Amino acid sequence: MKVAIIGAGTSGLTSIKCCLDEGLEPTCFERSDDIGGVWRYTPNVESGRASIYQSVVSNTSKEMMCYSDFPYPEDAPNFLHNSKMLEYYRQYVETFGLLKYIQFKTVVQKVKKCNDFSSTGKWEVTTIKDEIQQTSTFDAIMVCSGHHSEPRYPLESFPGIKSFRGKYFHTREYKTADEYKGKRVLVLGMGNSGSDIAVELSRIASQVFLSTQKGCWIMSRVFEQGYPWDICFDTRLQNWLRNILPPSVVSWLIEKKVNEWFNHANYGLQLSDSSQFKEPVLNDELPSRITCGFVLIKPPVTEFTENGVKFDDGTTEDNIDVVIFATGYVITFPFLDESVIKVEDDKIYLYRNIFPARLEKPTLGVIGLVQPLGPIMAAAEVQARWVTRVFKGLCKYPSLQQILDDIEKKKEILKKRFGSSSANILQLDYIKYLDEMAIDIGIKPNILGIFPTDPSLALALLFGPCTPAQYRLVGPGKWPNARKQIMTTWDRIIKPTKTRTVRNQESKSTTMTLLLGVVCAFALFLSVVFYKY
Amino acid sequence: MKVAIIGAGTSGLTSIKCCLDEGLEPTCFERSDDIGGVWRYTPNVESGRASIYQSVVSNTSKEMMCYSDFPYPEDAPNFLHNSKMLEYYRQYVETFGLLKYIQFKTVVQKVKKCNDFSSTGKWEVTTIKDEIQQTSTFDAIMVCSGHHSEPRYPLESFPGIKSFRGKYFHTREYKTADEYKGKRVLVLGMGNSGSDIAVELSRIASQVFLSTQKGCWIMSRVFEQGYPWDICFDTRLQNWLRNILPPSVVSWLIEKKVNEWFNHANYGLQLSDSSQFKEPVLNDELPSRITCGFVLIKPPVTEFTENGVKFDDGTTEDNIDVVIFATGYVITFPFLDESVIKVEDDKIYLYRNIFPARLEKPTLGVIGLVQPLGPIMAAAEVQARWVTRVFKGLCKYPSLQQILDDIEKKKEILKKRFGSSSANILQLDYIKYLDEMAIDIGIKPNILGIFPTDPSLALALLFGPCTPAQYRLVGPGKWPNARKQIMTTWDRIIKPTKTRTVRNQESKSTTMTLLLGVVCAFALFLSVVFYKY
Repeated sequence: MKVAIIGAGTSGLTSIKCCLDEGLEPTCFERSDDIGGVWRYTPNVESGRASIYQSVVSNTSKEMMCYSDFPYPEDAPNFLHNSKMLEYYRQYVETFGLLKYIQFKTVVQKVKKCNDFSSTGKWEVTTIKDEIQQTSTFDAIMVCSGHHSEPRYPLESFPGIKSFRGKYFHTREYKTADEYKGKRVLVLGMGNSGSDIAVELSRIASQVFLSTQKGCWIMSRVFEQGYPWDICFDTRLQNWLRNILPPSVVSWLIEKKVNEWFNHANYGLQLSDSSQFKEPVLNDELPSRITCGFVLIKPPVTEFTENGVKFDDGTTEDNIDVVIFATGYVITFPFLDESVIKVEDDKIYLYRNIFPARLEKPTLGVIGLVQPLGPIMAAAEVQARWVTRVFKGLCKYPSLQQILDDIEKKKEILKKRFGSSSANILQLDYIKYLDEMAIDIGIKPNILGIFPTDPSLALALLFGPCTPAQYRLVGPGKWPNARKQIMTTWDRIIKPTKTRTVRNQESKSTTMTLLLGVVCAFALFLSVVFYKY
Repeated sequence: MKVAIIGAGTSGLTSIKCCLDEGLEPTCFERSDDIGGVWRYTPNVESGRASIYQSVVSNTSKEMMCYSDFPYPEDAPNFLHNSKMLEYYRQYVETFGLLKYIQFKTVVQKVKKCNDFSSTGKWEVTTIKDEIQQTSTFDAIMVCSGHHSEPRYPLESFPGIKSFRGKYFHTREYKTADEYKGKRVLVLGMGNSGSDIAVELSRIASQVFLSTQKGCWIMSRVFEQGYPWDICFDTRLQNWLRNILPPSVVSWLIEKKVNEWFNHANYGLQLSDSSQFKEPVLNDELPSRITCGFVLIKPPVTEFTENGVKFDDGTTEDNIDVVIFATGYVITFPFLDESVIKVEDDKIYLYRNIFPARLEKPTLGVIGLVQPLGPIMAAAEVQARWVTRVFKGLCKYPSLQQILDDIEKKKEILKKRFGSSSANILQLDYIKYLDEMAIDIGIKPNILGIFPTDPSLALALLFGPCTPAQYRLVGPGKWPNARKQIMTTWDRIIKPTKTRTVRNQESKSTTMTLLLGVVCAFALFLSVVFYKY
């Protein structure tokens, strides 16, 4: 079975490997001259390819954001700079010999059903390389082209932008802060990129304004006691709780939690509608930059003037030199006919975010088109494992009616939890989503079953972070090191930061704790009283 | 009464004003050509003057770090960039007409007792300006020359430094990160400067190593619920608690508190002797830089090699391009004879950190030679108010024996609390220290006395931050706005950051809280359980 994989980034690379693992014949088409996709930084923007800024660091931690059978070196930091991510991809490619399946500088122009598609499910793929067009037939397609190539750049929503004399551009064009020294910069939009760029510019610009309509919850990579946020957040127990509690309670708990760090209302970041869950933005430094006055939070812009902007609270800012539109991206599949996948108003109907619902044969899957509160890398890998087995007919594929029902059902759940905002259409319940596919493949660990024979593993699976290795314990693709990998997760989290140790003072402090317990409890109680004052 | 003031920085400026308030005749000698002292950034290092890096931001917040009768503009950020601090000093000078009392470019060469000192207490001050030497007689001296001019630069303690071929220098020489792009940098020492510089360089260097012998507690400016740390920490109630609890319990509580943010042991920052209190280092970004791998914490350096260093845990790092000695400063008074003030092993014997103990007449006071866990600015002002009244004979000055007893007593207390490290000799109990002088002047508010007539003020004085305006409520120098200033403290803290508001959803969330209280309590309990896992 010949499989065409479009894109050699996070999703494409693991798709190649999953094809190989399943004995399929992958051919990966990559439009640029190298692997890495969104994670490969280049100082220039390349047309049709995702573009990041030089300082990007991963938002999810190394124990979560990795392929399930390919851990990082032990001393890798918990959150990785894009250059280190790229290094990891290179090692993955080398270790599993993936390079020979990739055709670089090859743009996929068209993917269309063969005439006999309804019986064979085959596709005709037209590519172009060095100005030479070529068309080949494939049994299946894995679309791994990402969703960060086509900017959402709604200039038409901003009256007066045409007469604005400053510089303006989309975050996609932003690379480094160098040229903005001493400038007054306005960043429009507060996703991860907008917040990162605002913080970075605030160290060099004379003033940064950060405009947000909806507000957002800010979370730090440095979470409870300094552990990575996702290590604390993405556990099966927490996930279970988030699912059984009413969405409003979950929102309330999250609000409470994020406000412990800093009161979002006092920092101008309160959600305009806090009844609906909104994916937190990961940023370690924004609150500090706000309280030090380098970043000023502003409401939405209503109008541009020749040299400034008006905001919807009636305030204005003049002498704005630069405006950066951090307005995100739109999903496009330029090589696919609308009859295959139609993106309308940023809505897209895919079974399990993968298969076009009404496709007669499930021989085209989109990998990595998700935005979970967890690592995309691990999600893409489970998707690829499931998809390749669907291709092979090893996983049962449901009927059209079942698919439509499932999509409808999930849409309702998501709407309840995340609201109907277009920004949220790729969100999903990370662990539940993976588990669904894992059950079909037969790789979901049975915690209850494990408990009698290996209780410590069972507890780690339930209470610990749901790391990708959890899907390598059993079933097809089982990895002998998976158990060890899971049981040593916490060691590897501490390893890269505990680079200086002091002789243990544990015994002394234990005595102390016992002796002074009562006094401390009293003092703590008083502390609470006066801190809150 | 003619008073010579040496230095026109934080301490010097308020000393001029306090002299004027008390009807004394101040003459301020400033060696450079401008005011601001340590807070005036210059791109070049000037001999004999403090030198800061371009990015320095105040460590204490605007409500604490201000002169008592001269608040910042309402929209000033909570923590101020050095350029904004300098602006504030300029406004202070302008508002109170201090400029005409300052002689710029005038170096004080010698301050010595007049022959009739034991009866008159007069001093002879020799200055040099434009190569012209001049000697004048003064009735009293206020030494405001700071303690950040003379670097502690113990190269001799580092074997092999002579053969080290990289660049090395003291933090005093560090200005901006620009020239260290792609370098491997080692910062030796983890005070505020060392940590700041390590974090700043980590954004541009290829790797930063931060070496610390003792470790340190890191605290963020963004404290409980986002309020400035000192607003929460420097309250009379907290201070009272810290004084009545045994030092070991206080240390334990602080350890517990700082480890909530991140576990210092896991980040390589655990104190080597956590039984003794160590002043926390203020840094908002270091933990994030560590967990992202940009800053690596290392133990002390034992030896330099030609191109690298050896650490005391046996590890080595080669190809170190730059070493920055963040080893602090030594106290010197080059213009004073040792018979007046002797600094020995960084020990110095001053009554209330101001008056040389054995001086026959209290006509020379050192202002600002403190390092409290609170703002120096406010401390220097109360010192200057007290000192000027001692000069005038309005405050009773104790006998030599009382002075020696007092110094001895306090040394014992400090030793118990802070340990005997030389780095701590300027530390003191901020509020208690100010209160002592305030009682002598008659400006300490009597909280119990206030309570019956103005309970809300009394509560604000006790539970709220001990802002400088607390010393302007009563007595000499009373400021009519002091009460209002105190009662609106919290508004001004929020004002500069709450620059975007959303319509109030309070009522809804209150209902929610009531309805879901029980569920949430349960969920929270579970949260605690699994977060800690």
